Amino acid sequence: MLQGTLFQFENDTPWQDLGNGIHRQIYGYDDKIMLVKAKFDKGAVGQLHEHYHSQVTYVDSGVFEMTIGDQKKTVRKGDGYYIPPNEVHGCVCLEPGVLIDVFSPHREDFL
Amino acid sequence: MLQGTLFQFENDTPWQDLGNGIHRQIYGYDDKIMLVKAKFDKGAVGQLHEHYHSQVTYVDSGVFEMTIGDQKKTVRKGDGYYIPPNEVHGCVCLEPGVLIDVFSPHREDFL
Repeated sequence: MLQGTLFQFENDTPWQDLGNGIHRQIYGYDDKIMLVKAKFDKGAVGQLHEHYHSQVTYVDSGVFEMTIGDQKKTVRKGDGYYIPPNEVHGCVCLEPGVLIDVFSPHREDFL
Repeated sequence: MLQGTLFQFENDTPWQDLGNGIHRQIYGYDDKIMLVKAKFDKGAVGQLHEHYHSQVTYVDSGVFEMTIGDQKKTVRKGDGYYIPPNEVHGCVCLEPGVLIDVFSPHREDFL
């Protein structure tokens, strides 16, 4: 079975520069689940997109305007959201911060 | 398909008192995934246990001594870990904090 490391330490985990003010760290995963940190500069936009994975997210820091389907809400540190499979979603970063995105199954396109 | 709400706001989400200095909030979920916040008082112990779910965790705050199988490490805000299915694991809270635990499939025993 596909598996990442047991422990992930923030300072040892490489950042991927996705451009347009967004950076990503890959944390724990196997074939069923994957945790990813996504850091946004102020004003950075997570373009509307969809995928077949279920997604849950925790807002580690910052403020984001989040769109899921036809709903748009402002989420802040401590809040969270759920994205059903194949639901269109995207965000605008209003204050710089980090989203903890977790997918099931894992994002094979991120590896 | 089983599904929770799209958005979870920290101040609107009930805390469950699990006793022994541990509290829990249930965030987003469907049948494939579930995100749970677990808040620990200093010295609180997550007893060694195991389950068939894959688990990924992000340390939102605090310091924890974490045991996974035969490995024991100290994790702090910003770190993370992965627990394979049926792997024994547990923690001791060294400084008060919150763990973001995500399971696949969802924890039917938490609902």
